[in-house]
Amino acid sequence: MSIYKKIEIVGTSKASFAEAVKAAVAEAGKSLRHMSWFEVVEERGAIKDGKVHEFQVTIRVGFKVE
Amino acid sequence: MSIYKKIEIVGTSKASFAEAVKAAVAEAGKSLRHMSWFEVVEERGAIKDGKVHEFQVTIRVGFKVE
Amino acid sequence: MSIYKKIEIVGTSKASFAEAVKAAVAEAGKSLRHMSWFEVVEERGAIKDGKVHEFQVTIRVGFKVE
Amino acid sequence: MSIYKKIEIVGTSKASFAEAVKAAVAEAGKSLRHMSWFEVVEERGAIKDGKVHEFQVTIRVGFKVE
Amino acid sequence: MSIYKKIEIVGTSKASFAEAVKAAVAEAGKSLRHMSWFEVVEERGAIKDGKVHEFQVTIRVGFKVE
Amino acid sequence: MSIYKKIEIVGTSKASFAEAVKAAVAEAGKSLRHMSWFEVVEERGAIKDGKVHEFQVTIRVGFKVE
Amino acid sequence: MSIYKKIEIVGTSKASFAEAVKAAVAEAGKSLRHMSWFEVVEERGAIKDGKVHEFQVTIRVGFKVE
Amino acid sequence: MSIYKKIEIVGTSKASFAEAVKAAVAEAGKSLRHMSWFEVVEERGAIKDGKVHEFQVTIRVGFKVE
Amino acid sequence: MSIYKKIEIVGTSKASFAEAVKAAVAEAGKSLRHMSWFEVVEERGAIKDGKVHEFQVTIRVGFKVE
Amino acid sequence: MSIYKKIEIVGTSKASFAEAVKAAVAEAGKSLRHMSWFEVVEERGAIKDGKVHEFQVTIRVGFKVE
Amino acid sequence: MSIYKKIEIVGTSKASFAEAVKAAVAEAGKSLRHMSWFEVVEERGAIKDGKVHEFQVTIRVGFKVE
Amino acid sequence: MSIYKKIEIVGTSKASFAEAVKAAVAEAGKSLRHMSWFEVVEERGAIKDGKVHEFQVTIRVGFKVE
Repeated sequence: MSIYKKIEIVGTSKASFAEAVKAAVAEAGKSLRHMSWFEVVEERGAIKDGKVHEFQVTIRVGFKVE
Repeated sequence: MSIYKKIEIVGTSKASFAEAVKAAVAEAGKSLRHMSWFEVVEERGAIKDGKVHEFQVTIRVGFKVE
Repeated sequence: MSIYKKIEIVGTSKASFAEAVKAAVAEAGKSLRHMSWFEVVEERGAIKDGKVHEFQVTIRVGFKVE
Repeated sequence: MSIYKKIEIVGTSKASFAEAVKAAVAEAGKSLRHMSWFEVVEERGAIKDGKVHEFQVTIRVGFKVE
Repeated sequence: MSIYKKIEIVGTSKASFAEAVKAAVAEAGKSLRHMSWFEVVEERGAIKDGKVHEFQVTIRVGFKVE
Repeated sequence: MSIYKKIEIVGTSKASFAEAVKAAVAEAGKSLRHMSWFEVVEERGAIKDGKVHEFQVTIRVGFKVE
Repeated sequence: MSIYKKIEIVGTSKASFAEAVKAAVAEAGKSLRHMSWFEVVEERGAIKDGKVHEFQVTIRVGFKVE
Repeated sequence: MSIYKKIEIVGTSKASFAEAVKAAVAEAGKSLRHMSWFEVVEERGAIKDGKVHEFQVTIRVGFKVE
Repeated sequence: MSIYKKIEIVGTSKASFAEAVKAAVAEAGKSLRHMSWFEVVEERGAIKDGKVHEFQVTIRVGFKVE
Repeated sequence: MSIYKKIEIVGTSKASFAEAVKAAVAEAGKSLRHMSWFEVVEERGAIKDGKVHEFQVTIRVGFKVE
Repeated sequence: MSIYKKIEIVGTSKASFAEAVKAAVAEAGKSLRHMSWFEVVEERGAIKDGKVHEFQVTIRVGFKVE
Repeated sequence: MSIYKKIEIVGTSKASFAEAVKAAVAEAGKSLRHMSWFEVVEERGAIKDGKVHEFQVTIRVGFKVE
């Protein structure tokens, strides 16, 4: 019987939401093994000088507990 | 008086959420005519070897009933 | 004590959700100063001839009241 | 043991939300038998020349599978 | 200092959602005094012989506690 | 590329939710041009002397920014 | 024209969510007649000594007003 | 096996949300015994002469059925 | 690139929510191949003679499009 | 027939959510007349040096259109 | 003053949602002490060969911080 | 590129929701550095002897990953 845990993490990117997700997953991978899926929870971002400065995506990462 | 139906479909892409939407719409177009809009319902994805393997987007596609 | 207001705006793009957000922020910037963040409220789009015609993103833009 | 399916359909009316629901149910009835209930999912509409042009109601229709 | 209670009640009507709300409020008024507002919680209905048989509206009725 | 804004407005009517929507749209039209759609956000109402006194509908009105 | 009321009740069980629902309905039946449906609102539970101690289900019970 | 019921009640206070909750619980206690928890459902308030006139909190109160 | 569709189906059971899910999936399997997951959308049920008469579970079934 | 508009505003306070609401209402009052109610939409805050630095409350303010 | 933390965990079971919850709690108990409650966040599952292969329940587990 | 994590924590206070938030943040600060914001997820509380015994606030705390 498989058991998974989920953690919540926020990635950022100058380029797009997809890149922000990749950044978050890459960071999570530094301390987690066996990651198997993510769920987007929230999309927002920072604005500076009248332009989008940064895309921010909150995801939940699911990983298998050994 | 116009009547529309909606179906729910999940598209996937290695590249981005936008590409996953396009894939879902293209697929839906094989069996539906008169599609006129989509609504994003859920964004998630698969992770493999510590990296985003695939973006998955669930959309609802609205199409006109003739 | 800082006070912020939020307005709701819909941006569109042929390319992606991220571009649609940028378009919305750019437009909002024509009449607002001191914008500091945005929140994605809804993602949808138009379909024409069986293809995604346009990505539409509703965002709330938060800006500081002077 | 009874099994039901649900489909999602959008009805429109110049007059009211109730009429839009009736239109959607009537349309669904062309291809479905044994419909037994509906649930309102979303209410919106189109505006033209500064007036409500059309009420649009998305409903889910539940029908018994024989 | 005013205190209010809320109860949840479902009204039905052959004609429209508005009539279903009126029926629910009229019924609630048989046992409650000092009703002051209602909130629509859910709209659904029954279908019979391929037509809308009845509109059903769940409302919360707020009334002042003496 | 089209840009839209949304404002939130509450219409009231003695008769029905549909009439309350029409009242809200008519009012919004006094200061806005190019309105193109509305979304129902909330339906509630006032009760007086044990009867529905007034239907209240909160809508978001979307209009094109020139 | 039928009118229904709903009350909210929490049932508990050592065994399962389904048993907790049955307990809640049985209890509600002590003071209500003409109950006709229930809706699950929340599922949670208590943990003791590292094990599930009790399943708790909040349901809304709908009953016909005579 | 314990069974609980929940009622919905709105408390008001000139001072704060916490005081409004206390007022609601105190009122509920006049007719209920064995209250054991509350859940905040909605926070709003009235404005008069450009100032907050009253904080209003809707809570659900859970109490044990003997 | 994989594409999935989702349909919505309601299963019923005298015994439990899990059995109701199984009934819904079994029914869906009569007309669908390549089903790969389900999501619980709503849990409710019918009451008769003061007892739970039937558990009803609405699920969305996801299946691969060939 | 009364018509209301709603705007969204974020107030901040070092002390509490209630104070943050008051600040937001006071600010809104500088440009709006006939404000009559507020609804809390979101509560969050900033943390600095390991302590709550500021409470932030997003409210919708409803005001009568003359 | 008590402080609690919550973690999110996914349990699986061939048999039922209740068993999946028990599996998740048992797993969480390997690394946590003082667990005191759980909340069901999501119920879904895997389908294989046209049958329910596995029930999956996401719960939040609350535990006291010493 | 900044990456943040979020954890979920429940604070309690005899006095108010704001104090409960402060307690939760203070506790989180014992094991986390670089906390930068919190989001209120749920407000509830315990009742004893007919009075509010304790305010309980669930918050998500966001902190920067170094």
